[in-house]
Amino acid sequence: MNPESALKALRECRDRIDVLDLRILALLNERTRIVEEIGRIKQELAMPIYEPKREDEVFRNVTENNRGPLTAEGVKRVFERIIDEMRNVQRLRMLE
Amino acid sequence: MNPESALKALRECRDRIDVLDLRILALLNERTRIVEEIGRIKQELAMPIYEPKREDEVFRNVTENNRGPLTAEGVKRVFERIIDEMRNVQRLRMLE
Repeated sequence: MNPESALKALRECRDRIDVLDLRILALLNERTRIVEEIGRIKQELAMPIYEPKREDEVFRNVTENNRGPLTAEGVKRVFERIIDEMRNVQRLRMLE
Repeated sequence: MNPESALKALRECRDRIDVLDLRILALLNERTRIVEEIGRIKQELAMPIYEPKREDEVFRNVTENNRGPLTAEGVKRVFERIIDEMRNVQRLRMLE
């Protein structure tokens, strides 16, 4: 590959990533809306926000179904961050 | 909502989350494959893996297009983790 076509390929890869990121973003916001719904239900049932058993289920779902190239540990760390952000949203809603 | 139907609604929300998570997982792995491709191109061009300007572009793309309910800061933190994991993958590949 000459430098010119390599740079072109790089640009194309980045364009594909930008499109993918917006799809990931849309799913993250959809997930957050469901988490907000769960927050309302839990408030009605007087259930705690933090349920370690459910979080284990979430991690198991994604790591057992992971075919890579991300490692199981990498997947777990990304979902830890996702869960953490959504717990923040649930906490904020409960203060409203 | 009586407790029984609240619990049913909770289970349904969780099922929807499990399905969503597998879609997010698939996109994350697709993104990783593109990042691996970028790693190969950069190696050919003798370019550095870490390019802060490109990372700013990635953050701008997702935060400017974010309509919530996740906050811009939350979105940025999730994508920081995603980028970090993919940089790990790129580094591992270069050691192969």
